[in-house]
Amino acid sequence: MNNNKPAHFTSLTQALQLIESGQSSTEAILQACLERIEEREPEVGAWQYRLDTRACLELYRANRAFYDNSLLKGLPIGIKDIIDTADMPTEMGSPIHTGRRPVDDASCVALLRQAGGIILGKTVTTEFAYFKPGKTANPRDLTRTPGGSSSGSAAAVADGMVPVALGSQTAASVIRPAAYCGTVGYVGTRGEFSLRGIQPLGQSLDSLGLFSRTVEDIELLRALLLRQTPVQTEARKPRRIMLCRGEAAGEVEADMAVAIEQAAALLSRQGVELIEPQDSAWLGALVQHHGVIMAYEAARNLALESAHPDLISPALQELIDNGLKTPRSEYLASLRAVAEIGTRLAQECEAVDAILAPAAPGVAPKGHERTGAPHMSRPWQALGLPVVTLPGLTDTAGLPLGIQLIGQARSDDELLRTARWLAPLLTQAGTDQR
Amino acid sequence: MNNNKPAHFTSLTQALQLIESGQSSTEAILQACLERIEEREPEVGAWQYRLDTRACLELYRANRAFYDNSLLKGLPIGIKDIIDTADMPTEMGSPIHTGRRPVDDASCVALLRQAGGIILGKTVTTEFAYFKPGKTANPRDLTRTPGGSSSGSAAAVADGMVPVALGSQTAASVIRPAAYCGTVGYVGTRGEFSLRGIQPLGQSLDSLGLFSRTVEDIELLRALLLRQTPVQTEARKPRRIMLCRGEAAGEVEADMAVAIEQAAALLSRQGVELIEPQDSAWLGALVQHHGVIMAYEAARNLALESAHPDLISPALQELIDNGLKTPRSEYLASLRAVAEIGTRLAQECEAVDAILAPAAPGVAPKGHERTGAPHMSRPWQALGLPVVTLPGLTDTAGLPLGIQLIGQARSDDELLRTARWLAPLLTQAGTDQR
Repeated sequence: MNNNKPAHFTSLTQALQLIESGQSSTEAILQACLERIEEREPEVGAWQYRLDTRACLELYRANRAFYDNSLLKGLPIGIKDIIDTADMPTEMGSPIHTGRRPVDDASCVALLRQAGGIILGKTVTTEFAYFKPGKTANPRDLTRTPGGSSSGSAAAVADGMVPVALGSQTAASVIRPAAYCGTVGYVGTRGEFSLRGIQPLGQSLDSLGLFSRTVEDIELLRALLLRQTPVQTEARKPRRIMLCRGEAAGEVEADMAVAIEQAAALLSRQGVELIEPQDSAWLGALVQHHGVIMAYEAARNLALESAHPDLISPALQELIDNGLKTPRSEYLASLRAVAEIGTRLAQECEAVDAILAPAAPGVAPKGHERTGAPHMSRPWQALGLPVVTLPGLTDTAGLPLGIQLIGQARSDDELLRTARWLAPLLTQAGTDQR
Repeated sequence: MNNNKPAHFTSLTQALQLIESGQSSTEAILQACLERIEEREPEVGAWQYRLDTRACLELYRANRAFYDNSLLKGLPIGIKDIIDTADMPTEMGSPIHTGRRPVDDASCVALLRQAGGIILGKTVTTEFAYFKPGKTANPRDLTRTPGGSSSGSAAAVADGMVPVALGSQTAASVIRPAAYCGTVGYVGTRGEFSLRGIQPLGQSLDSLGLFSRTVEDIELLRALLLRQTPVQTEARKPRRIMLCRGEAAGEVEADMAVAIEQAAALLSRQGVELIEPQDSAWLGALVQHHGVIMAYEAARNLALESAHPDLISPALQELIDNGLKTPRSEYLASLRAVAEIGTRLAQECEAVDAILAPAAPGVAPKGHERTGAPHMSRPWQALGLPVVTLPGLTDTAGLPLGIQLIGQARSDDELLRTARWLAPLLTQAGTDQR
């Protein structure tokens, strides 16, 4: 527990401990977060909609007995604006849905509310979780993109506005913004969580994702989202890690290549055995198949919006057009190829605790017109594997270089225990480096 | 084309041909369907909400140019009441959601509207597509259940109220009511269609389904739901069918056992080779694993409703409680077991065109307190395979005994062509028998 951090920069787990021990209170932490938002939001632009200070404190005070007896004690959470909330608009980053007000909370929102979380607001998403950015800047360097599509969730957590936030990933929408903003990011095995109330983009690809500042917080939220009682587990030191440098998927910048070697050296020093994939041509194949599947399925999931072509961005229109042009045989061939690669990789990784790979090609690119390249996530997302981005390493200017750990399907619990072991070592390595 | 049927009993495809050739009109068919509903609805109870005659005809007349130039010409469609419609309530068979009015159409609804279908209304569903029946009776014998959960869609199509209707299946919710009411029923390979706007029950099990009076209609709707241009294909005579009598999954009544032998004899006479599974213990295992997965996932998907225990039926509460009690290890083991059985079966069926099996244990049971047993569908639904129920055979009293054809994953197109070949032979056999 680090008591030296400002209140709004504690993790969720740390904040709960501070409240439990009487060293802080829900109101103090809510107020610290709200002040941080007041101060920084004009520059960061993480929020599409949010409770103001008065509304938030009134909500807490009006239900104080409930919150004080709850697991999450009324601590604040950000929700990506493609996830339905019954008491706030859900606009999905699209002018087609300006002012849209869903009738029901998404399952994930309902579960976090039932556990005593306060939904502080809706975080900026790119248009339908695809490419067109919203207003968000990267809090680590405002001239850069925060990454997308869960731009606001990553920025809000990285900037100390909320300890945790929900996002979603179809290509790279959690792992990349987490890497660019320097937060922990987690994407569950596909099928792991109820997606009720989350706008779909590609049913063979969509996953719920989480942002936080520690792996412990991910584990806590994950338990709540699975309606499980949170339990304490030991961090797990891995015995064998597969190193996947990523070039076969696409460009890896020099800074990221260095970071991966740093992480590998760190693991070696800890006595972890490193192995490399027998070949990695499948990584490039997965990038390509992912693109085919995403376009085909997005064109069907966004059928409703096809009635408003004037309100769809050129990039999204191109995705839909590509999806409609894709022959069904090509789509089916891509699904089959992904399944075959998945079976082979699962066999090759049977004795591997996790795969280590770059979470993005490098640091967050300059500018706000694009959200960065998705090719470092597409392979794992096509396979539906659980992934954690870990911060810690940086370039020489101190900008985050996220690395990702990838687990076997449905081994999310084990993956997070491995990530919990690695996270402090990466943070230490990043500190030593500066 | 059968011109001797009353207008409301033509298929969608036949109605389109009658309109195209000037022998009938959209208004005439709409009016025939609406009159049928007026006459029969008090007894059948297929509809939760519907346009009355004036509203329906006004909708058609106000947009006549659009409908007359469209593919579906303004013909009427029923939508199961767990599928969102922006202009009609969607109550999901639950008092928790009385008057619930979604903000968006589900993708499947949007696509059928864009193709010129008129959504005539919302058909009765059991509570959240689980067990608790609505008000619907079986139009073939009003003292019997129509089956569930897509009770209203099956009854409306069987009774000549609409030519086609949408449903959904997590266990047996399309195949069983289609069998009991004597319609064609189709469930797509899992993942085949966008499920945006369809209330989820179990994300590893849910599929969109269709009801119609002919296989041609299924093929037409399927193309529209995939945003494909409908194309004419040849019916496909199968070379080899695997006969799966179903006892390993649970009770098969004597009448159904006879019907399966009739279907087998018919296939043999046509020169189709029949083979039997090497063993069928896996069928019972799938029934059991399906139950574990459904309970576990339903408990998460219905998180929102857990705040209203007083408005949840005892049967649904039991499902949720079972799901919450299920150890995660058991759930994961069931998912793994299903995947392994699926891989083995796919290999065993490599040279098989389809599996033939009972679509229900027998004819629709007496009474309206239950919707019949789901064990004949659970195995295939756990595997996520495409399935078609075909009517035609009956018991000695003339009540429908549906048989189902099951295809390999993603071979929906081929399966439907096989079903189109078999359908008239079964109808003929049923007629000969009477």
